[in-house]
Amino acid sequence: MPKIDLDTIPQVNATGYPAPHADAVQGRWYRRLGPASGLTEFGVSHVTLKPGGWSSQRHWHEDEDEFVVLLSGEAILVDDNGRTPMRPGDCASFPKADGNGHCLINESDRDCVFIAVGRPPAGRGHYPDIDMAWDGSAKKFTRKDGSDF
Amino acid sequence: MPKIDLDTIPQVNATGYPAPHADAVQGRWYRRLGPASGLTEFGVSHVTLKPGGWSSQRHWHEDEDEFVVLLSGEAILVDDNGRTPMRPGDCASFPKADGNGHCLINESDRDCVFIAVGRPPAGRGHYPDIDMAWDGSAKKFTRKDGSDF
Repeated sequence: MPKIDLDTIPQVNATGYPAPHADAVQGRWYRRLGPASGLTEFGVSHVTLKPGGWSSQRHWHEDEDEFVVLLSGEAILVDDNGRTPMRPGDCASFPKADGNGHCLINESDRDCVFIAVGRPPAGRGHYPDIDMAWDGSAKKFTRKDGSDF
Repeated sequence: MPKIDLDTIPQVNATGYPAPHADAVQGRWYRRLGPASGLTEFGVSHVTLKPGGWSSQRHWHEDEDEFVVLLSGEAILVDDNGRTPMRPGDCASFPKADGNGHCLINESDRDCVFIAVGRPPAGRGHYPDIDMAWDGSAKKFTRKDGSDF
């Protein structure tokens, strides 16, 4: 059955971020739709951001295109351009290697739901606001100097 | 600016389907968001199905995963399982090579809007209900016996 029964897919707020950077994404509850529905060529996450929740720390990838579309609620897209409200039906693209750190923050008092599409990054991810980096080859977060947390 | 200004992207109802198979998709008006927003790893289409419009002829791909999420309005997902209503927020995945021909049909009296994600298929596409096939290597539609229209 191609239509996805979301209720059958576990919703988690797990993160690989080390403390204290994990705190911001505790309100990010997501379902991985790709593996659950047989997709292998790209990943799709169904994300509910609770009030105050962040989609991620502000970041950009050297080798991963990302796309989001808002389904319900509101979020603020934060990037090098400033703050941009996102409402249901709004779309945003984050081309790989654009050097523009981005995240969504739910500053409202109700849930925000969006779909995020991407592919697993094998290269580096950059976090301009904090002392953290993603090492795609080692599949782990490090400090910016490469040292472990 | 990551947020996409949909109004700046041309909306077209072009199709490569030969007559008479093109008739069903005349009410499919779409914007290609990937090229317009710098994405190269996957394609994203923002599609408005007018009343009576079909998303495609019913089909499946040997080598392309597809994913859709409904943004507004309603459509009927038609596949080998029958007819499944799709409403805003509903998601569906169409894994490559699943052999299950699918399409969305807007049987309502107002527009239906959805996002479709995929990657350009290089292999064959199958259309179980009509005498047509997609030849990905030649990038053209043929009859099922391989002959040209």
